Amino acid sequence: MRFHTRKWIKPEDLNPNGTLFGGKLLAWIDEECALYSIIQLENSKCVTKYMSEINFQNSAKQGDIIEIGIEVLKFGTTSLTLKCEVRNKMTRSTIITIDKVIMVTLDQEGNPTPHGKTKVEFVKDRLQDKP
Amino acid sequence: MRFHTRKWIKPEDLNPNGTLFGGKLLAWIDEECALYSIIQLENSKCVTKYMSEINFQNSAKQGDIIEIGIEVLKFGTTSLTLKCEVRNKMTRSTIITIDKVIMVTLDQEGNPTPHGKTKVEFVKDRLQDKP
Amino acid sequence: MRFHTRKWIKPEDLNPNGTLFGGKLLAWIDEECALYSIIQLENSKCVTKYMSEINFQNSAKQGDIIEIGIEVLKFGTTSLTLKCEVRNKMTRSTIITIDKVIMVTLDQEGNPTPHGKTKVEFVKDRLQDKP
Amino acid sequence: MRFHTRKWIKPEDLNPNGTLFGGKLLAWIDEECALYSIIQLENSKCVTKYMSEINFQNSAKQGDIIEIGIEVLKFGTTSLTLKCEVRNKMTRSTIITIDKVIMVTLDQEGNPTPHGKTKVEFVKDRLQDKP
Amino acid sequence: MRFHTRKWIKPEDLNPNGTLFGGKLLAWIDEECALYSIIQLENSKCVTKYMSEINFQNSAKQGDIIEIGIEVLKFGTTSLTLKCEVRNKMTRSTIITIDKVIMVTLDQEGNPTPHGKTKVEFVKDRLQDKP
Amino acid sequence: MRFHTRKWIKPEDLNPNGTLFGGKLLAWIDEECALYSIIQLENSKCVTKYMSEINFQNSAKQGDIIEIGIEVLKFGTTSLTLKCEVRNKMTRSTIITIDKVIMVTLDQEGNPTPHGKTKVEFVKDRLQDKP
Repeated sequence: MRFHTRKWIKPEDLNPNGTLFGGKLLAWIDEECALYSIIQLENSKCVTKYMSEINFQNSAKQGDIIEIGIEVLKFGTTSLTLKCEVRNKMTRSTIITIDKVIMVTLDQEGNPTPHGKTKVEFVKDRLQDKP
Repeated sequence: MRFHTRKWIKPEDLNPNGTLFGGKLLAWIDEECALYSIIQLENSKCVTKYMSEINFQNSAKQGDIIEIGIEVLKFGTTSLTLKCEVRNKMTRSTIITIDKVIMVTLDQEGNPTPHGKTKVEFVKDRLQDKP
Repeated sequence: MRFHTRKWIKPEDLNPNGTLFGGKLLAWIDEECALYSIIQLENSKCVTKYMSEINFQNSAKQGDIIEIGIEVLKFGTTSLTLKCEVRNKMTRSTIITIDKVIMVTLDQEGNPTPHGKTKVEFVKDRLQDKP
Repeated sequence: MRFHTRKWIKPEDLNPNGTLFGGKLLAWIDEECALYSIIQLENSKCVTKYMSEINFQNSAKQGDIIEIGIEVLKFGTTSLTLKCEVRNKMTRSTIITIDKVIMVTLDQEGNPTPHGKTKVEFVKDRLQDKP
Repeated sequence: MRFHTRKWIKPEDLNPNGTLFGGKLLAWIDEECALYSIIQLENSKCVTKYMSEINFQNSAKQGDIIEIGIEVLKFGTTSLTLKCEVRNKMTRSTIITIDKVIMVTLDQEGNPTPHGKTKVEFVKDRLQDKP
Repeated sequence: MRFHTRKWIKPEDLNPNGTLFGGKLLAWIDEECALYSIIQLENSKCVTKYMSEINFQNSAKQGDIIEIGIEVLKFGTTSLTLKCEVRNKMTRSTIITIDKVIMVTLDQEGNPTPHGKTKVEFVKDRLQDKP
């Protein structure tokens, strides 16, 4: 699993009990899954279709730095299945894990459309392949 | 299921494709589950422990009004299990359903603590019972 | 008066003195009046035209849960007059009351347009009446 | 009336109809009244107690620049009464006027406390008077 | 230098150390430079092209009131060069200074376009000059 | 230079002209520099002291994915000097470059304090070194 995006937990990210608001965390994960899919599938219209059960394992507090990791489980015809983990950057303790997030590519009318991808690609390679 | 909180979908709630950002929706649900638990359990320290799988059934667009419904499934010793549905207020079409959200009450040290509740109560009745 | 939308007061909702920022409260009220009008008048273009005087009776603090209540006072030809109250969900103490909020329906050019409604309707009934 | 704070209307400030969200405007006004009072009364604990009726005269759209004006009407013992107007910076057309906003200074316990001020002061003069 | 826009530092503006988040401050400055340029150049499409080095001289804390000052250094053909200072409203201590901010006017295709302005104008005078 | 944090440009990130708001971009950069310094210096109290001149080279639009890269230039006694670049994830075109960002570690009183670090470390190695 590769960890990219990092967040610094600020007062605006807290719930009234002073710990990281779970809803904020879910919003960050959803954004990361979406942008990861857009990069892989080269289609800007990727939407979240399904998330498997979510265990909130540990909390995080103001000032903590967290990082969000994504791993590809499977390329479907119109979908991409991801696994996601969020952990504390400094201690590596897991905050949340979602075993399966299914993203789907849509066409202009909003219907699922084949993305034609079958494996993880790197932007660097794509750019080199351009004539 | 009782539907309370309503949201009017504004530009700040959209993803770049112009539909409701899924992360925002999850944040709204998490807040609603938390405040519902606080009301029922009369303990301000309620945290989300678990969410069962999430199906994003329909999308919503700018200007839509949605409402969030909560139903109690079970009172545990330190927990409260909820079911949650978000639907379009005008058409009643379901946007998202989460069959099981487990909330837990914590003590000052952050450990699960019994809440002593066994059934849904109404604030009105509580206030009348006060001497 | 019916109370629907609830808010859980988070750090991002506070003024620098640590109590609920009045401006946030007014924004929440304005959104609730707008969405209530849209539901009743079945016209998505409803704007706030007038608010009568506002008394900030009690404050609210981080972690409090508040609920926003709306009551219809009058259906005009192009307008809808509402009464609004915000109260603490747990103690029922009033936070703010606005005796009169006038909402107006606009046409595509932004001019007032008749909405054709004369009494409160429920979405449930509307949906049943559809052939 | 002196106009100070200016805002550039961005997508995040719009309602779903694409015009300035009235609630955002009220929040901006409330902040301006609060900070103006803190400057004048030299007490950081100033709260909004009352707003007279509000007429939404004109709307504003994305990209517009607005400015917020404040004028002192009266110094009370524990209060300060202001008049507020928001207008379009380029056309000077009025967007909203509030004839009377009453701000109150509070002590540590949250009770009204005399502020000892009787007229508008300028920070420049205060700083020069310091020994 | 004229100081217009004022901000009241709220919890949502803080970094996790409890002082004003530098990024928020930069965002406020950027907005002020943009709107100042739009007013002067009478072209709504003004973008930030360059900022000279930035010294964060003093911090600010929750409840502080700051004001943002702008001064014109030079009118170019397609550009406007500004100087910017942010200071504490009550103590006048400088928080940040940026000696040079270059704003450019763009045409519909996003290319620099002459703005035809050569000196600071006041909106009041412009409105009086209109036939 | 290593690129970590990614952002998906949403409606709330735009200026009124519909391109990425420069102030938002600066806020993202400031957060990334702060959290990078905290990780390297193992001191949660890191503040931005200086940024060298900033060239806004290219813009970004709604739906674009950008990534933020950081490179260490120098470890000082109480400071850390970074270089920062933001680029479009898909095309790799540079959006902004800041050649020098100086971060400083502070003690409890807010005075610069030695951090004791002299080279880039990886969290993985630190955790392995723990007994």
